[in-house]
Amino acid sequence: MRTIRLLFIAAALSTALTVRAADSSPAPNLLTGAEYPRVGEDLTVAFRFKAPEAKLVKLEGGAGLVKEPLTMTKSADGNWTVTTPPTVPGFHYYWFNVDSVKVNDPASYSYFGYGRECGGIDIPEVGVDFYLAKTVPHGEVRIRPYYSNVTGKWRRSFIYTPPDYDQNRSAKYPVLYLQHGAGESERGWTEQGRANLILDNLIAAGKAKPMIIVMDSGYAAKPASAQGANQPPNPMRATAEFEEVLLKEIIPMVEANYRSIADPNHRALAGLSMGSMQALSIGLKHPEQFAWIAGMSRPPQQNFDLTTAYDGAFRDAAKFNEKVKLLWFSAGTAETRFHSGTVALHEALEKAGIKNTFYSSPGTDHEWQTWRRSLHELAPKLFQTQ
Amino acid sequence: MRTIRLLFIAAALSTALTVRAADSSPAPNLLTGAEYPRVGEDLTVAFRFKAPEAKLVKLEGGAGLVKEPLTMTKSADGNWTVTTPPTVPGFHYYWFNVDSVKVNDPASYSYFGYGRECGGIDIPEVGVDFYLAKTVPHGEVRIRPYYSNVTGKWRRSFIYTPPDYDQNRSAKYPVLYLQHGAGESERGWTEQGRANLILDNLIAAGKAKPMIIVMDSGYAAKPASAQGANQPPNPMRATAEFEEVLLKEIIPMVEANYRSIADPNHRALAGLSMGSMQALSIGLKHPEQFAWIAGMSRPPQQNFDLTTAYDGAFRDAAKFNEKVKLLWFSAGTAETRFHSGTVALHEALEKAGIKNTFYSSPGTDHEWQTWRRSLHELAPKLFQTQ
Repeated sequence: MRTIRLLFIAAALSTALTVRAADSSPAPNLLTGAEYPRVGEDLTVAFRFKAPEAKLVKLEGGAGLVKEPLTMTKSADGNWTVTTPPTVPGFHYYWFNVDSVKVNDPASYSYFGYGRECGGIDIPEVGVDFYLAKTVPHGEVRIRPYYSNVTGKWRRSFIYTPPDYDQNRSAKYPVLYLQHGAGESERGWTEQGRANLILDNLIAAGKAKPMIIVMDSGYAAKPASAQGANQPPNPMRATAEFEEVLLKEIIPMVEANYRSIADPNHRALAGLSMGSMQALSIGLKHPEQFAWIAGMSRPPQQNFDLTTAYDGAFRDAAKFNEKVKLLWFSAGTAETRFHSGTVALHEALEKAGIKNTFYSSPGTDHEWQTWRRSLHELAPKLFQTQ
Repeated sequence: MRTIRLLFIAAALSTALTVRAADSSPAPNLLTGAEYPRVGEDLTVAFRFKAPEAKLVKLEGGAGLVKEPLTMTKSADGNWTVTTPPTVPGFHYYWFNVDSVKVNDPASYSYFGYGRECGGIDIPEVGVDFYLAKTVPHGEVRIRPYYSNVTGKWRRSFIYTPPDYDQNRSAKYPVLYLQHGAGESERGWTEQGRANLILDNLIAAGKAKPMIIVMDSGYAAKPASAQGANQPPNPMRATAEFEEVLLKEIIPMVEANYRSIADPNHRALAGLSMGSMQALSIGLKHPEQFAWIAGMSRPPQQNFDLTTAYDGAFRDAAKFNEKVKLLWFSAGTAETRFHSGTVALHEALEKAGIKNTFYSSPGTDHEWQTWRRSLHELAPKLFQTQ
């Protein structure tokens, strides 16, 4: 016991003596005790990774963190280090490329993106706390397993219930179905996006109606489909089969188990990137299901024709505007192709008399800070009219 | 679009032509589409990992998977492969040691163990399905954030509510507080342990009473404590500070927010390894809080004295037997030191007139299959008397 105590004192002293920039601190979402990566006041980020036998180590990750892979420098102690130029605030996936092998930082928790578990760093944004945990009433995120007959597999939903859900027993709630992007999973909107904290804060401020948010996997493959279990996910096919899972399985499961209002005026469908394609495609084809539709960072589409798109949903503007309560788009200014494509669609729709809203996220790329801000802008607009 | 379809057909053909053992299949908990690691009928496991520039790659992980690191063999295509001897069924952490760097398999989801994110493989146990998802009513695992004044930090609980919790509005439930082991987290009992599925199945079979299970982090450090944020976790200190978090924060939070029965006869405290030390230490010192106490794979303790241990809890057998409804221990036969230490304690307690139960898990090591089986044995015994 005395030995253990002495070891701890020694460790404490050695930590105190570590050379570090006075104006930097460990990123807020790391494992307890991690000293790196460190975020500077100028939003540069210093990374450190031990790989004594490696020949070439590069830092790779999201565009707001590193535009191109950054080659790291080896020290005599086997640590590789690099400091980025100033970064964009928000969540970025990252990993180290160690002699062609992608390796996650042991200082980081894992986040599912790019079709695998990645590291993730959250760069604080000065003065911005809408997605941070605050001393307000908190809802829950409930993990619910269910068997899918469409895919022949067990799936799970992450379902946000608002703070008053268990107390206010007579209340029924509208439901937002909220989809992640390609290569991500049902955990994304909670772990990377912090959808639950964003809604807790908005609801506490009286800015959004209490709602249920259903976050499920956008991937779905029938057992016998051409997109077999051994194939890489194909976003286009995923949409067709996910539509069936959503309409035949997820929505009925939610409405049977949660105090939800089961009509189109109280169902919203939103998603980011691949999820925006799913939200627009499924939502616009099914006005009998969803009156609120939102696409964040929608991938630009070639040969897009307003008159034929989405089974001709935009052909009759008056009819569309009467049925659809909200058609909403967003993109970050740094994801230039997505941004200009979405602006063009927004303007073309306006010209065609289709009411729609566009939110532009300043300075953010095809990353979660765009989508956190998007949800923060979108949620207050949902379910405000009957 | 035609190009994409052709690519998919090509990919399908190439998959069909992959040489593989006829009697093996991908482990059931891998990412969709992963072909390796493959489990054979004899429970040998074949691993494959691409690292074309590496000099030495070893497979490392839990004792039931690999007793010692297994050196892998490099192929001309840059893949390293190895097949293990027959393994023990159940969940095993694993990773590749690539030239002294620990690298997770991209085929695996991440599981928090050893103080970091690891890969994990679940080897099926023939004829055993008590921890698998079945078509029975399912409970939820609710993620609840809360602010801890003791630690000055936000924490989160994973809280299992039984299948009828939302329907049976007048029911109140007993609560099992269930702790993970050293280096693990509040996710462990759900992701690795499948506590929710074990209870779903037991409740459906009428074998366990519906109960709430609270799974929280066993780590807690006061901001100003000697175990500062930058120190590696010290299990002994963790216990002292976790006790305060559990008694002053977690239990009141649970009893304020869930329909629980708030008396010692309806509170159980159990844990595995480090968590068993916490369960025994906190539970036996606080009979006014817990009448059901269980320690799984308790680490052997030197100079353990029955008369002074746990503030003298065992000194008066009659008083102890009256207050404590269940004192329960378990260990796997392959974790020999833990097993023999627990048997010795069990027998010494019996000799001293202290009623207690011991469950021995055949063939399993200091790993999750021991603890899944332990929960499956323990849960039916809980809350059966008032």
